[in-house]
Amino acid sequence: MSTHNTKAFGADVATAPLKEMNIQRRETTPNDVEIEILYCGICHSDLHSVHNDWGGTTYPVVPGHEIVGKVTKVGDEVTKFKVGDLAGVGCIVDSCRECDHCHNGDEQFCDNGWTVVFNSVDKKHGGITYGGFSESIVVDENYVVRVPETLDLPSAAPILCAGITVYSPLKHWNAGPGKNIGIIGIGGLGHMAIKIAKAMGAFITIFTTSQAKADDAKRLGADNVVVSTDAEQMKNCPKQDMILDTVSTKHDINTYIDLLKVDGSLVIVGLPAQPLEIGAFNVVHGRKSFSGSNIGGIAETQEVLDFCAQHNITADIELINMNQINNAFERLEKGDVKYRFVIDMASLKN
Amino acid sequence: MSTHNTKAFGADVATAPLKEMNIQRRETTPNDVEIEILYCGICHSDLHSVHNDWGGTTYPVVPGHEIVGKVTKVGDEVTKFKVGDLAGVGCIVDSCRECDHCHNGDEQFCDNGWTVVFNSVDKKHGGITYGGFSESIVVDENYVVRVPETLDLPSAAPILCAGITVYSPLKHWNAGPGKNIGIIGIGGLGHMAIKIAKAMGAFITIFTTSQAKADDAKRLGADNVVVSTDAEQMKNCPKQDMILDTVSTKHDINTYIDLLKVDGSLVIVGLPAQPLEIGAFNVVHGRKSFSGSNIGGIAETQEVLDFCAQHNITADIELINMNQINNAFERLEKGDVKYRFVIDMASLKN
Repeated sequence: MSTHNTKAFGADVATAPLKEMNIQRRETTPNDVEIEILYCGICHSDLHSVHNDWGGTTYPVVPGHEIVGKVTKVGDEVTKFKVGDLAGVGCIVDSCRECDHCHNGDEQFCDNGWTVVFNSVDKKHGGITYGGFSESIVVDENYVVRVPETLDLPSAAPILCAGITVYSPLKHWNAGPGKNIGIIGIGGLGHMAIKIAKAMGAFITIFTTSQAKADDAKRLGADNVVVSTDAEQMKNCPKQDMILDTVSTKHDINTYIDLLKVDGSLVIVGLPAQPLEIGAFNVVHGRKSFSGSNIGGIAETQEVLDFCAQHNITADIELINMNQINNAFERLEKGDVKYRFVIDMASLKN
Repeated sequence: MSTHNTKAFGADVATAPLKEMNIQRRETTPNDVEIEILYCGICHSDLHSVHNDWGGTTYPVVPGHEIVGKVTKVGDEVTKFKVGDLAGVGCIVDSCRECDHCHNGDEQFCDNGWTVVFNSVDKKHGGITYGGFSESIVVDENYVVRVPETLDLPSAAPILCAGITVYSPLKHWNAGPGKNIGIIGIGGLGHMAIKIAKAMGAFITIFTTSQAKADDAKRLGADNVVVSTDAEQMKNCPKQDMILDTVSTKHDINTYIDLLKVDGSLVIVGLPAQPLEIGAFNVVHGRKSFSGSNIGGIAETQEVLDFCAQHNITADIELINMNQINNAFERLEKGDVKYRFVIDMASLKN
């Protein structure tokens, strides 16, 4: 397979800082789109992968899965994109295309395992995939989405992961007018959840341990803010149809399950490494559920981008240069970002 | 309020054996039905209440909530029953009748708290309720169900709790033709779940740690039996739409969540006292759920009785006399019963 050198930022080992490196990108095959990466968001899972927190990281690793850019080249059989189009790439860059889930557009459930944009075996082209912390990327057009022209590009990048990760469960669990939707945590995911659930028409209650973030939640669109360490506030909280849990560390979820209505669901999208404890009584009374959700399919990723364009939603971001990445990772680890770092990839060229 | 002496079996303290005692039953008020109790099933929660395992037991306690009998008296305004009718009483003997859940016939979700047939404050008539280990009971006709004449009475008694407890979630989670339904544990609940889910038309897989019970599962109607301690059998198990978990002790549920299809649910109806641990990854991948379910409403209790009559389903029981209750409790604690003890209440009269 013919390839070309591409400048990127990645890590050689779990313990070293990220640094500039060269990777090989394939030349476009007939169905491929080549994208010049303009902006790439930074998600906590980039950090987890670099540090090998979940195991399974192959080095060198080039993270980044909230990619927006401009199409610079298309393969002969590409029909959906042309040179100059704005394009986005999220977590999924390939799947089996044959199972029921792929046929239904739910590639995130692919029976044969989908290919992650980075640190994943590329079953079709060989090698390991490299993510968005790079000048450009080459992806099959079926796994590329359109980025609406009206969106602010840097702050639209996080829609590709943070946005779809919260949009998918909010839609699946019917967030909308007349529904009480709780959101635990105000970070990259949580702040997007407030904006999206609000646009869906739901009544939003935010649960946070931080008074400072509580004050910000209303600006973001929350109707009600509960400081979860305040027992009185928790007790007086209205019952919720669904609570979206965006917290990635171990925490007590039973107190939140108790705040659900009959048939309500607490849906986790964070990924605490340690198991969570649930009392059987908490779910048995009121037929409640503890559920999970993981990103969304390609069609739904397009849908959330269009939804955000329609409702003028993007992330609150801090735009950084590529060489600030290690500092950004340090701050991200401390939760010190409002609410998403996005890399201006032009800075990689300098 | 006018009352009369009624012979019963109960416990004065958590640590003493059950013994004969006299309790007061109210005379029938205009909406009441008086029932001569013919048979009463023994459920593990009777044992838990007597031993105060969950706290909150008021002594003396008279357990028993799987009651079938014959109507001996009706109040002036009773329209649904007449003297001589077969009648059943389960867990619920009153509720607020005003909340949305009561209006929908989901009294088990009553916003104002329903009244349990025993060890519960009787908000309407005062005092504490006494259950089915007694000669007779007086219950508002709206909380009494008809027992179809075609059912074998002793083995029909467990339908009032074990039956409805498994029927309600199987129906709610759409057990039926083309669905793979797993059932964990073969006891009072589990063996009824096999029979009911089979009658619903589902493909039934039983998970058990006991080879002896595995052999019995097929007789009960299971299509597939998996000894859960056998890693190879677990690995080869087909993916399940729903798994009904009837186990009442702490156990690893993640291995079962991993056996669910996309959007599948593990539904617990047992009540382990200790919290269960769930890995976020286990539910996030495949949008899976861990849910609970608790008995069912009055209308649904009538429905399961009619369903069982239609499909000729009753429990596998060991019929005992009232004075064998303490031995039965001991055996129940060891899981030594196939699969439900039922008391012949005529034995209390001798």
